[in-house]
Amino acid sequence: MNIKVKLILLILAYNVDGWVWQCEQNNNCVRTEKSPNYTYPSINTCRLACGSFRSLWPQPTGKVALSQELELIDIRDLQIVINAQGDAVQYLDKVSDYFKELLNMEKTNCDIEAKKLKIVLISTSSDVNLLWKTDESYSLKIETDNEIKATITGPTVFGVRHGLETLSQLVTKYKISEQKSCLVTLKNGKINDTPAYAHRGLLIDTARNYQSLSTIKRHIDGMASSKMNVLHWHITDSQSFPLVSTRIPNMSNYGAYSEKQTYSPEDVKDLMDYALIRGVRVILELDAPAHVGSGWEWGPEAGLGNLGVCIHQQPWRSYCIQPPCGQLNPMNPNVYKVLELLYQDFVDLNPNADMFHMGGDEVFIPCWNSTNEITDSLKDRSEKAFLDLWASFQQKALDKYDKVRNNHKTNLILWTSHLTNPAYIESYLPKDRYIIQTWVPQEDELPKELLKLGYKLIISTKNKWYLDHGFWGTTPYYNWRAVYNNIILRGEGVLGGEVCMWGELVDNQNVLQRTWPRAAAAAERLWSDPSTTSEQAENRFFTHRDRLLFRGINAEAVVPKWCSQNEGKCNSYLP
Amino acid sequence: MNIKVKLILLILAYNVDGWVWQCEQNNNCVRTEKSPNYTYPSINTCRLACGSFRSLWPQPTGKVALSQELELIDIRDLQIVINAQGDAVQYLDKVSDYFKELLNMEKTNCDIEAKKLKIVLISTSSDVNLLWKTDESYSLKIETDNEIKATITGPTVFGVRHGLETLSQLVTKYKISEQKSCLVTLKNGKINDTPAYAHRGLLIDTARNYQSLSTIKRHIDGMASSKMNVLHWHITDSQSFPLVSTRIPNMSNYGAYSEKQTYSPEDVKDLMDYALIRGVRVILELDAPAHVGSGWEWGPEAGLGNLGVCIHQQPWRSYCIQPPCGQLNPMNPNVYKVLELLYQDFVDLNPNADMFHMGGDEVFIPCWNSTNEITDSLKDRSEKAFLDLWASFQQKALDKYDKVRNNHKTNLILWTSHLTNPAYIESYLPKDRYIIQTWVPQEDELPKELLKLGYKLIISTKNKWYLDHGFWGTTPYYNWRAVYNNIILRGEGVLGGEVCMWGELVDNQNVLQRTWPRAAAAAERLWSDPSTTSEQAENRFFTHRDRLLFRGINAEAVVPKWCSQNEGKCNSYLP
Repeated sequence: MNIKVKLILLILAYNVDGWVWQCEQNNNCVRTEKSPNYTYPSINTCRLACGSFRSLWPQPTGKVALSQELELIDIRDLQIVINAQGDAVQYLDKVSDYFKELLNMEKTNCDIEAKKLKIVLISTSSDVNLLWKTDESYSLKIETDNEIKATITGPTVFGVRHGLETLSQLVTKYKISEQKSCLVTLKNGKINDTPAYAHRGLLIDTARNYQSLSTIKRHIDGMASSKMNVLHWHITDSQSFPLVSTRIPNMSNYGAYSEKQTYSPEDVKDLMDYALIRGVRVILELDAPAHVGSGWEWGPEAGLGNLGVCIHQQPWRSYCIQPPCGQLNPMNPNVYKVLELLYQDFVDLNPNADMFHMGGDEVFIPCWNSTNEITDSLKDRSEKAFLDLWASFQQKALDKYDKVRNNHKTNLILWTSHLTNPAYIESYLPKDRYIIQTWVPQEDELPKELLKLGYKLIISTKNKWYLDHGFWGTTPYYNWRAVYNNIILRGEGVLGGEVCMWGELVDNQNVLQRTWPRAAAAAERLWSDPSTTSEQAENRFFTHRDRLLFRGINAEAVVPKWCSQNEGKCNSYLP
Repeated sequence: MNIKVKLILLILAYNVDGWVWQCEQNNNCVRTEKSPNYTYPSINTCRLACGSFRSLWPQPTGKVALSQELELIDIRDLQIVINAQGDAVQYLDKVSDYFKELLNMEKTNCDIEAKKLKIVLISTSSDVNLLWKTDESYSLKIETDNEIKATITGPTVFGVRHGLETLSQLVTKYKISEQKSCLVTLKNGKINDTPAYAHRGLLIDTARNYQSLSTIKRHIDGMASSKMNVLHWHITDSQSFPLVSTRIPNMSNYGAYSEKQTYSPEDVKDLMDYALIRGVRVILELDAPAHVGSGWEWGPEAGLGNLGVCIHQQPWRSYCIQPPCGQLNPMNPNVYKVLELLYQDFVDLNPNADMFHMGGDEVFIPCWNSTNEITDSLKDRSEKAFLDLWASFQQKALDKYDKVRNNHKTNLILWTSHLTNPAYIESYLPKDRYIIQTWVPQEDELPKELLKLGYKLIISTKNKWYLDHGFWGTTPYYNWRAVYNNIILRGEGVLGGEVCMWGELVDNQNVLQRTWPRAAAAAERLWSDPSTTSEQAENRFFTHRDRLLFRGINAEAVVPKWCSQNEGKCNSYLP
């Protein structure tokens, strides 16, 4: 090893806390007493120099060559040069500000000799729209002579953003004495990186319980830190309708838990901007025709008839899967008029969206079957009759959406359901319009069958990536290793996957803890799709959990601290 | 119902948020649109008037008679009269300050006619030592004429404190308009109350992961709000030794995760004071001879030989149950000298303690059996030989503790272990000295057998009250209903029980959420020991969760908010 010995000796002389870290064989950083051998003043510094992927999360998929030599940074002398065109310039300007904020979080007092850091950002394309087809690859090169120069090149601004995120993970604090500390990075390095999947998502559910804007921003920060790129926002359900609709204020007037527990259009747009700078796009879901109720009660009063049926009906077990009950009334033409207005609201929130999530899960036949208004117009009460009714609702909803989008033929996402049964999905849901989000267990063949039929898929493995499990019924909790080790279907039609944090048992108090750092485990599966397992990832993962905390995301503990201070010494504990 | 109609009408005229609450049959408060019928402006106000126990948590065990009529409080005119002697005066003074702080958390702006609240606190005894034999009963009487007068009487200050806690739960905010709100309480009421069990505990573990002083204070606040009275502090383990020992600084120098992640004697004493004002005593545990390691490494360097054996030894599975390994060396006489010094430190922290927890769980024979220093002096390597060795360690440790306490014959608590096997416990552990804390599953007969032998017990039902379960191995998570419905052994020798929040997978980020509100469910089991189940308690429990949040304890969500806004409408959902 070729190390800056002078600097290290200085550290040994001044280190206060008694402990130093050593990069052992197997690339473990282990806490040890001060010794004349080469050691690092903190685990983060050790991680920066130890192992082929250091503390990078997710691990890069291309060529990685990183020096073990470190360089102190004079952060007062940071220069970022943007080499791009059009909208890309402003975008990268904002990303640079975000990067600077990250660096400034580390309070340092570096009055010893250190080098200037110059960063060059090069984006080929000027496009700032994040889509499935967006190329998110990047290359990062660090070289040092009189100054440290980091060059990040990408075909799009989103690739460049990921490169900057990678660079931020290669900078840490170097404590020289109780008073003195500097930022430090690698002297040299080269990384080529590109994601395995285009869709790397997290679902949040703000209908079962409300989440504040600040909580949602912390989710986005966690995603940005882990290179996830889709926030799937399940914003309404039978429990509440917190979205303020400009065209139909009654939705949230009736449907929100309180006036404060709402999202205005401005709130949503601000969040979308906040997300985009962090490489994340927001997919809004308006679930229908089931999973509605609160917010849809005002039809009769307004002379529009019953927009929903079974709303809040009791005993709930007869009319729905989860209280409170409610389904849209497919027989009432006003339902489609209301949907059209709501769709217009949703499109206003994101006029360039190439997708929209229409929900479409868990229609509960007994609800419709108990409603005369519906059964009176059905030719019979067979399952097929109800499925046809449901499919016809879906078609009418689609027509309204297409009308609102001026026939743009936006991609629509639907959950797997009775309608997506491979035996008849093709007669109900055209594959050039619908992308299917599967939520079946790992061992279920459904995703494979739908893929074979030619449908594009988003995979949410129910018995691995449903982060709400473990707290109700007999569902188990999936620890970060289970989440990490969940290898999903591969193939051209597989856009990617999503971890789902359903909201029944989480709100501002515990949702970040329950989501993080587990969502980050899925992030590496989706970005890197490694052939290795969680055991090879744990050193980096423990550091990434600390990184999330440092960045304000309240990620839960995953081991006794002794195990993260002594990497590799708790082998196969908590498998 | 005899209601103050004038006040209610005022509210209906001004209520902003669109929703009001109604006390339905079955004592459910349900969200409803404004109506000319009698309704409440918030669920908390509704809860104050609805049901025999209103929102009291835990439910009182004696006579309860509460009016439905409410009275507005002019909080600027609060008077607390203390009728007590000696130390009790100062204690109740501090409790009064705590109570005032609780009331001041509700920001009100009450410029309409409201009444003075006068509180009289009467304690018979002047004793301010909280022990198992302490009588914690109280009676509370609320009467209103020109003023609201609340009289709280108890045989001890701790009973009076509980009475004041009860009163605080009978005060809430009454929103009159967007600008105006007052505190409100009952016009009349009478409660007699006394706990079912003397020992109502929560175990925290700050050795696997560190918890800040502020986190521990929030635990204590949660306990005070739920009338729990024992914080069992598992302060050291093999992973770390965060307690700063005055006599042996090496313990935390070697054993703490970092200099900052320690507890000074002053920290501990401050916490004990903080707790006592909240009706909680702190029981410190120094676990031995197993569950040690970090902090015990310096023996050889100091010329004292190996104080511990197998410390941090690998592969850990051969030498301990959980990494890192370590057990005390019973053959080294210096171990007992060090223990004596540590005991002296522990006694200094709490000179009047009538108990001390000596741990004593999970000795792992293969560790001792692999150590020549130990096996060379054993007559054979039979299980009995090791148990005898363990028992002799325990006796020597006890002798040292007694020496430090000048032969005070303090009660010692030990976990169940091989030594507490009913077949031979009596030959190892004298029942006039040792209280046994059982940690076996609900169906295990061990507690019954030990009780029959005459041992006093503290019950920690492993498959109901181990709040850390659900996140490792195949252990399930016990939701608040399971915790609540856990009926523990009854009988004179049963001091009570403890919920245990072991620290492997919790730290400052998630420990409050994982502990609360579930610990509060155990609190009602231990205070009230109701014959009813969680279903009868849920309305109060949901309100209590909100109360914990309001008081700064980050209790996790237990239902979709719709269910707590619409009591009784989610029946048998999430059982």
